Amino acid sequence: MASEGERRRVVIVGAGFAGLAAARALRKAPVAVTVVDRRNHHLFQPLLYQVATAALNPADIAAPIRNVLRRQRNAEVILGEVAAIDLPARIVRLADGDPLPFDFLVLATGATHSYFGHDAWAPLAPGLKSVEDALEIRRRLLTAFERAEREREPEQQRALLTFVVVGGGPTGVELAGAISEIARRTLTRDFRHIRPESARVFLVEAAPRVLPVYVESLSAAARRQLEQLGVEVRTGTPVTAIDAEGVTLGDGSRIASRTVLWGAGVAASPLARTLGAPLDRAGRVRVAADLSVPGHPEAFVVGDLAAVLREDGRPVPGLAPAALQEGRHAARNIRRALAGEPPLPFHYLDKGELATIGRAAAVADVRGLRFSGLLAWLTWLFVHIFFLIGFRNRVAVILQWAWSYLTFTRGARLITDTAEQWRFIAHAGGVPPPDAERNAPPAGSSTAPRPG
Amino acid sequence: MASEGERRRVVIVGAGFAGLAAARALRKAPVAVTVVDRRNHHLFQPLLYQVATAALNPADIAAPIRNVLRRQRNAEVILGEVAAIDLPARIVRLADGDPLPFDFLVLATGATHSYFGHDAWAPLAPGLKSVEDALEIRRRLLTAFERAEREREPEQQRALLTFVVVGGGPTGVELAGAISEIARRTLTRDFRHIRPESARVFLVEAAPRVLPVYVESLSAAARRQLEQLGVEVRTGTPVTAIDAEGVTLGDGSRIASRTVLWGAGVAASPLARTLGAPLDRAGRVRVAADLSVPGHPEAFVVGDLAAVLREDGRPVPGLAPAALQEGRHAARNIRRALAGEPPLPFHYLDKGELATIGRAAAVADVRGLRFSGLLAWLTWLFVHIFFLIGFRNRVAVILQWAWSYLTFTRGARLITDTAEQWRFIAHAGGVPPPDAERNAPPAGSSTAPRPG
Repeated sequence: MASEGERRRVVIVGAGFAGLAAARALRKAPVAVTVVDRRNHHLFQPLLYQVATAALNPADIAAPIRNVLRRQRNAEVILGEVAAIDLPARIVRLADGDPLPFDFLVLATGATHSYFGHDAWAPLAPGLKSVEDALEIRRRLLTAFERAEREREPEQQRALLTFVVVGGGPTGVELAGAISEIARRTLTRDFRHIRPESARVFLVEAAPRVLPVYVESLSAAARRQLEQLGVEVRTGTPVTAIDAEGVTLGDGSRIASRTVLWGAGVAASPLARTLGAPLDRAGRVRVAADLSVPGHPEAFVVGDLAAVLREDGRPVPGLAPAALQEGRHAARNIRRALAGEPPLPFHYLDKGELATIGRAAAVADVRGLRFSGLLAWLTWLFVHIFFLIGFRNRVAVILQWAWSYLTFTRGARLITDTAEQWRFIAHAGGVPPPDAERNAPPAGSSTAPRPG
Repeated sequence: MASEGERRRVVIVGAGFAGLAAARALRKAPVAVTVVDRRNHHLFQPLLYQVATAALNPADIAAPIRNVLRRQRNAEVILGEVAAIDLPARIVRLADGDPLPFDFLVLATGATHSYFGHDAWAPLAPGLKSVEDALEIRRRLLTAFERAEREREPEQQRALLTFVVVGGGPTGVELAGAISEIARRTLTRDFRHIRPESARVFLVEAAPRVLPVYVESLSAAARRQLEQLGVEVRTGTPVTAIDAEGVTLGDGSRIASRTVLWGAGVAASPLARTLGAPLDRAGRVRVAADLSVPGHPEAFVVGDLAAVLREDGRPVPGLAPAALQEGRHAARNIRRALAGEPPLPFHYLDKGELATIGRAAAVADVRGLRFSGLLAWLTWLFVHIFFLIGFRNRVAVILQWAWSYLTFTRGARLITDTAEQWRFIAHAGGVPPPDAERNAPPAGSSTAPRPG
C-alpha cells in the first residue's frame, strides 16, 4: 500500500464506457489514476455498425482517450497491451513495458462475439467490435457489389448479391437493415450490369424470434420492419456450417452467399482468466454485489466483462447505460474505501432498450413503455446523439445523418485495404488464427516500432 | 475496329484527375467508356497530407468512382488491376479478369515517389500517395508521441519526439508544417510525461532551397513561414542513409529520429513499361504533341504518367490542373478522331502554383503574381474547397476546417492498425518489398475474395 501522504494508485484497464466512466468519477478523488488501453481511442460502439455500413467515418464515433481526459489532472493514459493481472501482488503486467502497481484496480476490457467453438468461422464471418472490424465489413460489403458487377455467371452473381447476417440481436438487426437499405437505396444507379436492389439479405437467428431479450410484441414489430426493408428473417434456425460458398442452416437448407457477417454470442476478454476469479460460461467474472472480485475488495470488474445480477436474479444486460453505471459505482466504492467507509452494493437502473432497424424504423422499451416505428427511431436518434462523446463528433454525425437522410447517399463508401484485419477479432476473442505465425500480432504490437 | 453502328470502346485506366476528366469530357460522345481502377475511389490527392496529419477523414477527400460517374450513361466502372497494355492488339489485360478490347485508350495511372534506388528505405520512410499511406503516416506520428510518453530514457525519448521529412517540395512542406502544428498546438495538454511542443521537426531538401520549382522569393517566404512554425529546414543536404535509428545527411551529420517521412522523387506507374513506348528517366511516357503514344494515335497518356513538354521546352508540372487539362484534351482528340478530324496539339494553361505551410501560412504564384502569408493561404483554401469533388465532402471539409481553426484540435486522431500498409507503396512504385513472398499482394488482390 502507498505510504502516508502519497496518493493511492488506481489502475483502470480498458477505456470503453465502463472504464472511462470510472476514471471521470474519480476526477476529484485524492488518487493517481492510470488508464491503460491497447487503442488510443474510446469507441462509441452503439454506432459502430454505421461505420461498417459506410454511413459514418471511424473518427465520427471515436475520440482519443487522452483528449477525453486531458483536463483531468489526476489521470494519465497509457497506450499498451495488458498481458495479465496479478491480484495477490497488486500488479498489472503489460506485454510491452514496466509493470503497473496499483492500490485499486478497475478492470473493464469488455467482451467480443463468440463463435461457439467454431473458431474456423472467424475469417469467413467477421464480427463487429473494433474500427478495424467495421472497415473490414465495409470492404467486404462494397467489394461484393463490385465483384458481382464483373461476374458473368448468374449463379455466382446471385451468391455475390446475397448477404447473411448471423444473430438476431441488436447488432444483427442493425446490420441487416442497413445492408438492405444500401442495396435498395444507395447503390441503385451506380452499376450497369447488376441491379443492386435485387440483392437478398438474410438475418438468421437460432432463437424463435429476433431481439430475443425484448418483449414479444417488440420482436414482432422489429421483424415486420425488417421485412418491409426487404430483409428475409429466418428464426428458430441455427447456423450449422459456414464455408466460402455460403451457410448451412439447422433445417439442412443452404444459402449460397459470399458475404457472411457475425453478430452472435458473447465471449469475455481473455484477461478475466488471469484473475483466478469465478467466471460464468461466457468467461465473465462473477463479481460480488459491490462489483469487486470475491476476496479482493480493492479490485473491481465492470462493463461487459462483469457478470452482474440484479436483485431479482436476472443478469444486468450488456448495454452502454449499464457499463456507465457500473463504472461510476466502482469509482464510488473506491472513494468510500479511501474515506474508510464500507462498499455499497450495485443497483442497476434500467433505462430501457432501443434497437434501430433502418430509416425511421426502430423499437423501444423504456420502463414498460413500448413503441416502434418513427417515434422509436427519433428516440434512438436523440439518445445516441446526446451521448456521443465530444461536441465536434456530435455535430459531424448530425450533419452526415441529415445529409444521408435527405439524399439516401452514404458518405463513407471507401474500400480501403484492411488486409488481415480479421486477426483483430481473433486477437480480441482469443480465437487462434488459422495461420498463427503469420497473423498473430507480436506481443505489444500496438506500440512496437515497425520493423526496420 | 468496331463495326458500323456499334459504339467505339474507350478504355480509361486510372480514375485520378486526368482519367476522370477524360471520362467526363466524353459524356456526350457516341462511345462506350470503361473506367478501370484498382481502387473504388477517386482521391483528392492535394489534401491527402491532411488525412496523414489527422485533420481530415479519408472519406472527406475520396469519392466512389461509381458515384462520380453514376449519371453518365455511356460510362461503366470496373474495379480491377491492370497487368499490361497490349497496344498492337488494342487490349487492356487485367490481372484478374477478361481482357478489355479498346478502340481508344487513355492511360492515366499516375506516379508515386521514388527512393532513388534505395528501395530498402521504403518501410523506414513511408511516402504519401494513397489513403493507406496517409493512415500509416498518421499511425506513426501519433504512436511516436504515445511511445515517448512511456519512454524513460531521455535520449530515446528525444529520438521519438524528432520527426524528419525528406523532400522540400509541396508535400514535404505541408507535412512538416502540419506536424509542427500538431506538436505545438493540438497535443499540448494531452500528455503527463512529455512536452509535445518540445518536439523537433526537420525538413531536409537536397536542392539549395525548399519548393525548388518556385521562384526564389517564394522559396524564401516558405522557409521563413516554416521556421516560424518551428520547423528546422536543412537545404542543400541530401539524405545519404536511413535506418531504424534516424537519418544521415550529406554533410555527415546524423539526426536521431524514429519517424521519417518521404516526400521526394517521382517514379511513374510501372504500367508505362508495358507500352513499348519511349520513357523519360522517371519512367514517364514521352508523348507526342497531341498526348498520344508515338505511332499509336488511338492511345493517349495523360496526367503524371505523361512527360509533356510546353512550347518553350519546359516540362508541364505534375499538378492537378495540368492533369485535368490533359485528360480533357485527350477526350477532345478522341472526339475529333470520331468525326474524322486530325488531332490537335496540347497547350498547357499555367494556372499558377500554390503551397500551404500551416495555419494562415502559404505561398502562391498565380501567373507571375506572387504572394505569401494569409492571403496565399485563403487563396489555397478557396481553390481547394472549390475543386473538391462532391458537394457533401466540400461541406464536411469546410466544417472540419472551421472547427479545427477555432479550437486547434484535429478531429481524426485515430490510430488504427494499417499493418503492412507500406507494401502499397512498394506495389505502386514497383519497389520490391524486403520479404516479397509474405508481403506481395497476390495478383488481383483488390477484388479477390478473402481466403476461406
